[in-house]
Amino acid sequence: MHYETLFQEIHRELQLIGEIGQVADYIPELAYVNPDQFGVHLTTVGGEEFAFGDAEKRFSIQSIAKVFTFVLAYSRVKSTIWERTGLEPAGTPFNSLIQLEYDKGIPRNPLINAGAIVICDILASELASPKENILSFIRRITGNQSIDYNSKVALSEKKTGYRNYALVNLMKSFGNIKNDIDKVMEIYFHICSIEMSCKELSQSFLFLANNGIVPYSGERILSVSRTKRVNALMQTCGFYDEAGEFTFKVGLPGKSGVGGGIVAVHPEKYAIAVWSPRLNKKGNSYKGMLFLEEFTTKTRSSIF
Amino acid sequence: MHYETLFQEIHRELQLIGEIGQVADYIPELAYVNPDQFGVHLTTVGGEEFAFGDAEKRFSIQSIAKVFTFVLAYSRVKSTIWERTGLEPAGTPFNSLIQLEYDKGIPRNPLINAGAIVICDILASELASPKENILSFIRRITGNQSIDYNSKVALSEKKTGYRNYALVNLMKSFGNIKNDIDKVMEIYFHICSIEMSCKELSQSFLFLANNGIVPYSGERILSVSRTKRVNALMQTCGFYDEAGEFTFKVGLPGKSGVGGGIVAVHPEKYAIAVWSPRLNKKGNSYKGMLFLEEFTTKTRSSIF
Amino acid sequence: MHYETLFQEIHRELQLIGEIGQVADYIPELAYVNPDQFGVHLTTVGGEEFAFGDAEKRFSIQSIAKVFTFVLAYSRVKSTIWERTGLEPAGTPFNSLIQLEYDKGIPRNPLINAGAIVICDILASELASPKENILSFIRRITGNQSIDYNSKVALSEKKTGYRNYALVNLMKSFGNIKNDIDKVMEIYFHICSIEMSCKELSQSFLFLANNGIVPYSGERILSVSRTKRVNALMQTCGFYDEAGEFTFKVGLPGKSGVGGGIVAVHPEKYAIAVWSPRLNKKGNSYKGMLFLEEFTTKTRSSIF
Amino acid sequence: MHYETLFQEIHRELQLIGEIGQVADYIPELAYVNPDQFGVHLTTVGGEEFAFGDAEKRFSIQSIAKVFTFVLAYSRVKSTIWERTGLEPAGTPFNSLIQLEYDKGIPRNPLINAGAIVICDILASELASPKENILSFIRRITGNQSIDYNSKVALSEKKTGYRNYALVNLMKSFGNIKNDIDKVMEIYFHICSIEMSCKELSQSFLFLANNGIVPYSGERILSVSRTKRVNALMQTCGFYDEAGEFTFKVGLPGKSGVGGGIVAVHPEKYAIAVWSPRLNKKGNSYKGMLFLEEFTTKTRSSIF
Repeated sequence: MHYETLFQEIHRELQLIGEIGQVADYIPELAYVNPDQFGVHLTTVGGEEFAFGDAEKRFSIQSIAKVFTFVLAYSRVKSTIWERTGLEPAGTPFNSLIQLEYDKGIPRNPLINAGAIVICDILASELASPKENILSFIRRITGNQSIDYNSKVALSEKKTGYRNYALVNLMKSFGNIKNDIDKVMEIYFHICSIEMSCKELSQSFLFLANNGIVPYSGERILSVSRTKRVNALMQTCGFYDEAGEFTFKVGLPGKSGVGGGIVAVHPEKYAIAVWSPRLNKKGNSYKGMLFLEEFTTKTRSSIF
Repeated sequence: MHYETLFQEIHRELQLIGEIGQVADYIPELAYVNPDQFGVHLTTVGGEEFAFGDAEKRFSIQSIAKVFTFVLAYSRVKSTIWERTGLEPAGTPFNSLIQLEYDKGIPRNPLINAGAIVICDILASELASPKENILSFIRRITGNQSIDYNSKVALSEKKTGYRNYALVNLMKSFGNIKNDIDKVMEIYFHICSIEMSCKELSQSFLFLANNGIVPYSGERILSVSRTKRVNALMQTCGFYDEAGEFTFKVGLPGKSGVGGGIVAVHPEKYAIAVWSPRLNKKGNSYKGMLFLEEFTTKTRSSIF
Repeated sequence: MHYETLFQEIHRELQLIGEIGQVADYIPELAYVNPDQFGVHLTTVGGEEFAFGDAEKRFSIQSIAKVFTFVLAYSRVKSTIWERTGLEPAGTPFNSLIQLEYDKGIPRNPLINAGAIVICDILASELASPKENILSFIRRITGNQSIDYNSKVALSEKKTGYRNYALVNLMKSFGNIKNDIDKVMEIYFHICSIEMSCKELSQSFLFLANNGIVPYSGERILSVSRTKRVNALMQTCGFYDEAGEFTFKVGLPGKSGVGGGIVAVHPEKYAIAVWSPRLNKKGNSYKGMLFLEEFTTKTRSSIF
Repeated sequence: MHYETLFQEIHRELQLIGEIGQVADYIPELAYVNPDQFGVHLTTVGGEEFAFGDAEKRFSIQSIAKVFTFVLAYSRVKSTIWERTGLEPAGTPFNSLIQLEYDKGIPRNPLINAGAIVICDILASELASPKENILSFIRRITGNQSIDYNSKVALSEKKTGYRNYALVNLMKSFGNIKNDIDKVMEIYFHICSIEMSCKELSQSFLFLANNGIVPYSGERILSVSRTKRVNALMQTCGFYDEAGEFTFKVGLPGKSGVGGGIVAVHPEKYAIAVWSPRLNKKGNSYKGMLFLEEFTTKTRSSIF
C-alpha cells in the first residue's frame, strides 16, 4: 500500500478542525517551538518508507525515551526489574504520589516518570558510563550516529523538575533508589532531552515490530517473547492516564512525549511516528492521536 | 494446527505446580465448587473446535457477563455511553471508591463493577424486559437456547452485595444512576449468575474475533471498528488490577470472572475459554492465567 | 455579666456584612426555611438565661443530634465502642469513603455521618425501642416533653440519603454494622429530623458544662472524666473539616448541624446555642460561627 | 498543690506496665539514647516549679520546635500565613502526600512536617539570619543562653531526610516555597536538632499559659487572642494523627516530638514537659502520654 496519499488526506481533514491544544510550556525550549509543525513517518519491516510534512525535523522526544531505557534495562537485567517496578497502568495522574506511598516506593510501571527514574537507577548501577551507553544504544538501533542529548533542555528540566525530585526522594525514602539522587536524575533529565525526527523514531522502534531484531543490521535486541511484552507494556502504560483511550481509538501499542511526538508499532508490519506539538489536556499530542486514530481506522490496521 | 495435544501438554506441566489459590467463598454456591476441575475450549472463526477436560461443564461466569451487557448497550446506545463511564484502566482495587468520588460518580470503565452497574442502568432504560432481553442476546450469539440465570446465585449475590450497594448508592448520589436502585441491581446480580461452559463461552465471544459477525448465523452484532474497540477495552480493563500483567504475559484481549473462568480473543483467528476455580490474589483464575500464558507463548499467538 | 446587650451588639455588627451563604437545599423542608432568622440562647450552670432573636423557635437540629446518641451509647456501652469507631478528626470531606475503605469500615470518629451510623447500630442492639428511648433521653436532659421527631423530614432524608446508604453498605461489607441496614437507617434518619430551639439546645447541652450532671434535675448522665472526654471529642471532631478553624477562632467545644444551628459549651460555665440558616462552604452556619468567634473574643472566654 | 508526690506516684504506676515501644532509630543520635530515662517538669505562671527524674537532662526536642518557629512567624507575619498553610488536623499519615497534592501544595497545618517547612520558608524571607534569629528567640523566651542546635543531629536528619525533601519539592512544584530548597531545609533540619531539658521546655512554653507574656521578663510575645489561638492549634494539630486521642485522654493543648518529649499547657495555670524516649506506634512518647493522662485525670485539670 502506498501510504503517502492517505497521510495527505488525513492531514487535510485535521486542518479543518483548527488549532486546538497548547504546547508544553514548563521550560522555554518547549514553549518556543512553532506549534503548527506537523510530521509523520512510517517505516515497514521490509524497509519501505512513507513520509509527510516535517518528517525529518528533530524535536524533543521527552517521555518516548523511556521505552529506550526500559528496553536497555530489560535486555540486561533478568528478574529483579519487576521487584523494583510494577507493570500495571497507573490510573489517574492525581494518584501518582499516593500510589507510590501506598505501594511503598514501587512505581506502577516503568513508563511513568517514577518508573523511568527507577530504570535510570538500575542503569546507573549496570552501566559503566550510563549517559554515553544509553546514547550509543539509541544510535545503534536507529543506525544514526548524530542523535544526541540537548544539554540546554536537560538543564531546564533539572531546574524546574521539582515534582520529579519529589518522586525520587519519596522512592529513596523507601529504599527503591540505590544510587545518589543526583547521579540518577542526571541520567533521567538527559534522556528526556534527546532530539529525534519522526523518521528516526520510526526507524528506532522498528525492531519492536520485527520480533526484536533491528532490520537494517540484523542485531537481536530482545527475544521474541520479550519483544511482545514490551509492546504489551506500551499498550497498557504508554499514554499516562489516556492509555485506555489510545488503545480504544488507535489500537496499536505506542508511546507519547510532551514534545508532541507519538510512536506506534504494528507487530510484524511497521513502526509509525507522528509529531504535532499542541497537546490535549492529558499531555498527549492532540493531532497526533487523531491522526493515528484515522490512520488505523481507514487502514483497518488496529491489532484488535 | 491441532491444539488438543498442546492443551494436554500444558495441563500436564501445570499439574506439577500443585494446587495454589482459593476458590471464591463469599457465597456458598461458589465456595462449594470442586476446585480441581479444569476445562479449556478453543473455537476458530473457521468453525474448528478444540477441547480438553471439563470443557462442557457449566460454571458461574460472573464478571465475564459484563462484556455481554456492555456489547448490548454499545450496539444500541450511541454517544451517551461515554458520558456515563470512562474507558481507562481502574488502577488499584483500593481506589475503586475514591475514584468514583473524585470523578463524581463516573466509573473508570464499563468492565469494573461500578461501570457494569451503570451499563445495567442504561439497559434498564433501553430495554423492555431487561433480564429477558439480555438472556436472549446471549443465547443468540452463542446459538444455545438453554443458557440461563441461576436464581439461587443471584439471590446470594444480592444478600451479600453490600459493597456493590455502596457503589450504586454513591453513583446515585451523583446522579449517574437513573432508575430505581432495586431495578438496576436486580439486573446486575442476575447477569453475574449466568452459567456457561468453556465451549459456550468460546462460541459466544467468537464474533469479537470475527469482525463483529456471529460466524454460525452471519448476524452482525457490531461494526468492524466497534468490534476492535471492544477488544481494545478488554485488553486494558478486562482483569481488574491485573490487566497489565495479563496483557504482558498472555498478550490477548480477554475477560475473567471470580467463578474461575477466563475468555480470550485472537482477532481474525479464535476465541478461547479456560476454567479453573482456584483464584490468585487479584481474583483471577490462577491456572487459567498460567495456561493462557503458556499457550500464547508456545504458539507465538500474542497479538503483540 | 449581662450578655443580652453583647448579643445585640454582635448581631448588629453581623448585619453589616450582608447575607452570605446558602441554606441547605437537599431536602425541601430545609430549603424553604426563612434564611434570615437568627437566634441565640445562653444558659449558665447556675441557671441564668440570656436570649436574643428567634431563640425559642424550633429548627431542624440535624447533626447536633449525633452528640445525644453518642452520649447515650457512651453512658451504656463500656469498652467496645472504640473497637467500632475511632476518635480522630476526619480530615477532608473528600476522604470520607477512602478512609472508611482504608480503615476497613471503622469510621474516624462518632460525630461524622459514618460514625453516627455505627452509634445508631450500637443503640439498635442496646435499646428495646431505640427511637422512643433516644427521644425520651433527649427530653429528659432538656426537661421538655414536647421535643419530637419531624417524620416528614426523616422521610425526605431517607429518600435522598444515597451517600449515607453508600457509607452504611460499605461498613456492612466490612462487618461493622450488626443489625439490618433498614433498621439502623430508620434510627439515623429520625435523629437527624429532631427539632429544637436555641433555648432547648443550650439547656440540653448544659450537663456537659456541669461535670455530667443535669443541673435542673440533679441526674448524673456521665462521670466527670467521661464528660470532659465528650467535650474533647466535640473540640476535635464537631465541625466536619472545619474543626481546626472553629477551635482556632471560637475556642470552645461544640457541634454544628446543616439546619444552621451550633451549640458550644464552656466547661463549668455555660452552654450556648446559636441559629442562622445560611451555611458556609463547609456546611456550618456562616453567621453562627462568626457570632461565636466575636462572643468568645469579646468575653475572652475561649478555654485556651 | 504540691505536685512532686503525685509525679512519683504516677511514675511508680507506670513502672508496672513494663517497657513498651521503641526509641526512634532513623538516625544514630536518637537510636543510641538510653530508653529508660524519664523526666517531668511543671512550671506554674506564678513561678513555682515541680520536677521529677531526669528533668534537667537535655534531649532532642525534634517536632516540638515547630511551635517555636510557628509562634515566631505568627508574631511577625500578618495575614499571609494562612494563604500558605491551613489550620485543620491532618488526618492519617498515609494522606500527607495526597493531601499536599490535592490541596495544590498547601499543607494542612503548620505543625506537620510540610507546614513547618513552609514556616521555615516564611522565616527565611523574613529574618536576616534565620538560624541565629530563631535560636535567640528560643533563648529569650526560655531565659537561657546555652540552648543550642546539635549540628551532628542536623546533619544526620539531612542525610536521611528523603521524605522531607519529597514534601518540599512537591510544594515547590506548586509555588508554595519561595526560597531555595537548600536554604529552607538547612533551617528546618536545624530546628529539629535543638536540645532542651524538660525544665527548659516547660519554661519556654509558659508564655502560652500566661496570655502571651513571658513571666520572668514581662515581654509580650503574642496578643491574648493570638496566644489562645496557638493553644487551640496545638490542641487539634499537635500530635500527628493522635491529636484526637491526646485531646480525649489528656485534655490539654500540647506538642510532641520523636525524641520522646511532650509539652502541654494549661492556660492561666502551668506548662508541663515530660520525657520518655520509647514511642508508641504513632510516634508519640508512650509513657509520656500515659503520664499526662493520669496527671490530668487525678488533678481534674483537663481544660474541658
